Amino acid sequence: MDSVRQRMVREAARALATLGLQRTSFTEVLKAANAPRGSLYHHFPGGKDELVLAAIDAAGAFALQGMGDSAGRPAVETARAFIELWRRILIGSDFGSGCAIAAVTVAAETPELLDRTAKLFQSWRARLASRLAAGGVSEARAPALAAMLISACEGAVILARAERSLEPFDAVAAELLGVIAASQAEGAA
Amino acid sequence: MDSVRQRMVREAARALATLGLQRTSFTEVLKAANAPRGSLYHHFPGGKDELVLAAIDAAGAFALQGMGDSAGRPAVETARAFIELWRRILIGSDFGSGCAIAAVTVAAETPELLDRTAKLFQSWRARLASRLAAGGVSEARAPALAAMLISACEGAVILARAERSLEPFDAVAAELLGVIAASQAEGAA
Repeated sequence: MDSVRQRMVREAARALATLGLQRTSFTEVLKAANAPRGSLYHHFPGGKDELVLAAIDAAGAFALQGMGDSAGRPAVETARAFIELWRRILIGSDFGSGCAIAAVTVAAETPELLDRTAKLFQSWRARLASRLAAGGVSEARAPALAAMLISACEGAVILARAERSLEPFDAVAAELLGVIAASQAEGAA
Repeated sequence: MDSVRQRMVREAARALATLGLQRTSFTEVLKAANAPRGSLYHHFPGGKDELVLAAIDAAGAFALQGMGDSAGRPAVETARAFIELWRRILIGSDFGSGCAIAAVTVAAETPELLDRTAKLFQSWRARLASRLAAGGVSEARAPALAAMLISACEGAVILARAERSLEPFDAVAAELLGVIAASQAEGAA
């Protein structure tokens, strides 16, 4: 069973990814989490800002998990798994939802929020670079490819949400997998 | 001399790209545009929503212009010019600003806004695909490469804003230019 706190964090992450920072209503988050009134300050003495930080941390951890840690996985499979995370969010939300961290970045009201989004993106970049390198991409190129994979997925999610279609996302995904496969082959050569 | 209307549109686009949709204050936009009180409904009888649509249209047109129309330009130069647009926005705003259209997409309150962002992204994709094909990329691959170029730039702008650094953006830009150059060489082969 999820705790009330866990449910609040999950619903806040979902609301941020769907509605953006300013439209996320904490009254609605509490309701969706089936949390009693008063839960916000009980679980998050820092209030909304603290819940937003916890929510984007959870979104960051979710994506990190999706990157996997099986050392032997080919780079192209790591990329495919990362791409698939985003694809599932688009499909599962009928194009209503995207990335909570990106949504907070473009509407952050405080330096603290921006510092946290930076930290989370850096953790993705580092983990993905290490997974790509472990999967056959050259160490030298893995960091830039990781940054491109993350950036292109983030942008493709935005295009897909605007167009309410997987078409732009899938076009970008196919190009990304081609690039990663080619660099994996080069790394192996 | 810019008209009051033009200044309002430009300042609204800047505010959207910097603050996001909900934090864009139309009082502040009027002030920044040096526009008299009452200008909003005089120039935009549909009110804020109409000004937002005009602002993202202007942002869309600005990027289209940056894609150029010189038929002979190599694809990699078209890509470089598009990338450079975003780089200048990041530098000129000290990482404070990004893409008005993306900001509206992730926080759109009405289907009309989302329809417009979709239309604008599609116009970018079509123009960029045609420029890339004219510049040596194969017709078959140009649409997907255009979608990737736009998506990766959008995402890299978000990473750069979060990290307040050009480093992720430049890493992604270098990868993108490599991919476009390779596909241009293939197209010519």
